[in-house]
Amino acid sequence: MTITTSVYIATSLDGFIAREDGSIDWLSQANTAVPPGEDCGYAAFMGSVDVVVMGRNTYEQVAAFEPWPYAGKRVVVLTSRLIDFRKGPEIQLEQSAELPQALLKRLASEGCKHAYVDGGKVIQNFLSHGLIDALTVTTVPILIGGGRPLFGRLPGDVRWTVARSKAYEFGFVQTTYLVRAGN
Amino acid sequence: MTITTSVYIATSLDGFIAREDGSIDWLSQANTAVPPGEDCGYAAFMGSVDVVVMGRNTYEQVAAFEPWPYAGKRVVVLTSRLIDFRKGPEIQLEQSAELPQALLKRLASEGCKHAYVDGGKVIQNFLSHGLIDALTVTTVPILIGGGRPLFGRLPGDVRWTVARSKAYEFGFVQTTYLVRAGN
Repeated sequence: MTITTSVYIATSLDGFIAREDGSIDWLSQANTAVPPGEDCGYAAFMGSVDVVVMGRNTYEQVAAFEPWPYAGKRVVVLTSRLIDFRKGPEIQLEQSAELPQALLKRLASEGCKHAYVDGGKVIQNFLSHGLIDALTVTTVPILIGGGRPLFGRLPGDVRWTVARSKAYEFGFVQTTYLVRAGN
Repeated sequence: MTITTSVYIATSLDGFIAREDGSIDWLSQANTAVPPGEDCGYAAFMGSVDVVVMGRNTYEQVAAFEPWPYAGKRVVVLTSRLIDFRKGPEIQLEQSAELPQALLKRLASEGCKHAYVDGGKVIQNFLSHGLIDALTVTTVPILIGGGRPLFGRLPGDVRWTVARSKAYEFGFVQTTYLVRAGN
């Protein structure tokens, strides 16, 4: 595969990306302590990405965001149901029902070099197929006790190396893991 | 409370302290990459502790360790069933069926200053009662897909500050969290 896949996501200390009902109030509240202009590397990461792959749930969460968070960026929404996509000059949305491997193969053949894989179910699905190369997890120092977990069942262990880890003074700890060969 | 309570534990990247069957093979294997003499701060931590509080499961896992890992240290095993404890000159084992708060109050009244709270269920129980002051989590860069989680349900959010975070060159990331006042 000539395409690299990355996850870039925030979780609670107990590993949830949202509460059971999808709420990320805990994350929004934690973000109020982040100094203006500090994006924890998000813009640099997004600048390195040429396609975003997300699930339908994630799309529906971001669909109405103003401005559109992925302006000028190709976005593939994985779903089998037809979506009436938001339209706009900087909006490049397409949908796909392909399996992860087939999708990545096609994206690579179309010249994509770096895919941002986002959304709980999609991340778990790609991970279970061994199709995530890099994982940047930003841990927010809060226990929320339950919710939608970042990680799920796997067919086997997946080992990683740590490329970098940074503790921000406002309490977030961000670590980038690279998948180890030979898992 | 004049007694401080700490957790000091290793977890997989997906937040498990053991597989479903209790196995920590993944941790033992990861430890083979740790340079000789590197203990990730464990001896210093243990040196600051005057009592260890653990559950029966944890006791049964460590009971036969040679040498006894808590030589010269008071160890309280939380259980309601009578335990036929291992005996030895440096072994100070006692059992208790007290609730967390009552136990800590008694330990404090007996002069204990710093309790090491260990074992999955016991940690979860103390956390759910708001009785953990410090949490040192050493994250091993492996996804195991399932097992015994470090964290469990909580009656409410618990916020923390980050006292320190360190990435070791062999891939462990250790972060110490201190509970925030007013949770």
